[in-house]
Amino acid sequence: MRDIDQFTITQAVKDTFRTEKGSRFEQLLHGLIDHLHDYTRENRLTHEEWMRVLTFLYDCGRISTPERHEFILLSDVLGFSALVDMINSRDGATEGSNLGPFYVDDAPRMPLGADLAAGRAGVCVLVRGKVSDTRHRPLAGAIVDTWQADAAGTYPIQEQGQDKMDLRGVFETDDKGEFWYTTVLPRPYTVPYDGPVGALLRAGDRHAWRPAHLHFILRAPGMSSITTEVFFENMEYLDEDAVFGVRSSLIARVRPVREGEDPGVTTRRAPEAVVEVDFVLAPAD
Amino acid sequence: MRDIDQFTITQAVKDTFRTEKGSRFEQLLHGLIDHLHDYTRENRLTHEEWMRVLTFLYDCGRISTPERHEFILLSDVLGFSALVDMINSRDGATEGSNLGPFYVDDAPRMPLGADLAAGRAGVCVLVRGKVSDTRHRPLAGAIVDTWQADAAGTYPIQEQGQDKMDLRGVFETDDKGEFWYTTVLPRPYTVPYDGPVGALLRAGDRHAWRPAHLHFILRAPGMSSITTEVFFENMEYLDEDAVFGVRSSLIARVRPVREGEDPGVTTRRAPEAVVEVDFVLAPAD
Repeated sequence: MRDIDQFTITQAVKDTFRTEKGSRFEQLLHGLIDHLHDYTRENRLTHEEWMRVLTFLYDCGRISTPERHEFILLSDVLGFSALVDMINSRDGATEGSNLGPFYVDDAPRMPLGADLAAGRAGVCVLVRGKVSDTRHRPLAGAIVDTWQADAAGTYPIQEQGQDKMDLRGVFETDDKGEFWYTTVLPRPYTVPYDGPVGALLRAGDRHAWRPAHLHFILRAPGMSSITTEVFFENMEYLDEDAVFGVRSSLIARVRPVREGEDPGVTTRRAPEAVVEVDFVLAPAD
Repeated sequence: MRDIDQFTITQAVKDTFRTEKGSRFEQLLHGLIDHLHDYTRENRLTHEEWMRVLTFLYDCGRISTPERHEFILLSDVLGFSALVDMINSRDGATEGSNLGPFYVDDAPRMPLGADLAAGRAGVCVLVRGKVSDTRHRPLAGAIVDTWQADAAGTYPIQEQGQDKMDLRGVFETDDKGEFWYTTVLPRPYTVPYDGPVGALLRAGDRHAWRPAHLHFILRAPGMSSITTEVFFENMEYLDEDAVFGVRSSLIARVRPVREGEDPGVTTRRAPEAVVEVDFVLAPAD
């Protein structure tokens, strides 16, 4: 190993890991080493640039907390998260989109027709939809886990003194695979802009805005779960989402409720608009 | 951007950064995005694997402190640091090698012949050498900044209650470009093995040992500085350095001092062995 050079070092590093031949661990590790080394050689990285990369990662670590994962944010703004979503989308199923940093896994169970936004300002919208499989059969008892920002573009979890469970809810579809609830229309917001990732965006003259959206995780027995987002037609930033989450198939229309219209479902609060969102799950492997 | 797919997203991400055309920032950023995206596509990373990578980086951040830079360690064990050293080595000059995590930039100035290891156990060795340019002309007044582990393989900075400046010193070469001092022969040691990088090494059934070495930074007016290491012939781990720092040209011989031998230089402490280390600096750009 004392005679390695800038070309033979890559194989030498891979050889030191005694991984199982053909294993997934070997594949992922060797691929990462190959790409990092190629990148370094192709660009003839200087010591100063190398140290800048490591200092950037160190700074991302320093600002991270259980409530703020700067590395997820980095992955988001470099399109790495969106790419993983795209690669793992299943034929015929709803496309995946960013999980984001604000999910909590123990949001309250709610009855159909509940209001997620009790007492909050904003346009009251009826969100209604259906969960079905790739052969168009409704999935009864599917779990619809949703969370969102408020009409000011803020997640309650981001603000001190707010109930972090606000604007979150878990619903179960009825016999026809349908679900519905009311909430307020969320607003666009910026991803955190005050840390190392924000500095990277500023260095590249990039804004940090995301178009308004609702988050969803869909689950049903025997089906592949999907993490995705729903956006709204004709709204700001649809074509310049800072984290590359928008897909044409995920953009819904916000339709005003007509005078005297019967929405056909019972809700606690009378909606001013309706958004229809249908989800399709593929069978689990 | 709502119609990007797993192949077109890479260009879309690059386009959002409004970098100066042809700038180094653009080159490094685009190269990184290309490699990360290629890696993700080639290996069809799952959400679980993606999250594992991000959690690994998060954990590296959590264990890092100003005295412990887990990202440098990660770069070291993946051969990334060594590769940067190799790429930046200059023709005819001494080869570079790992800076490592234990350098401090304000070590004490010492007179030629001083003992770095006052009061420490171990084999007392005379380190003597010359600093010259690539045309073999001695460099008078060159700065030789050195640090090392003790005879137990520990850096004083790693242990509470020790003087962190022990086993460090800054010398200036004399009119002939020569320098000399005594110290104790260092021992092999393991890089930190208790964090996420240690877990990675264990997952790959890799040890964490480094062969014994002395660290050096060499500086002279008008010359390119060099960060390097000196290893010792026939010692353990020379061909399996956990951080890939060894080069044939950096291995020195430890020669016992013969009975009644005159070393030709004055030292505070009488050496039991001699190590000769010559350094060559290339002109600065």
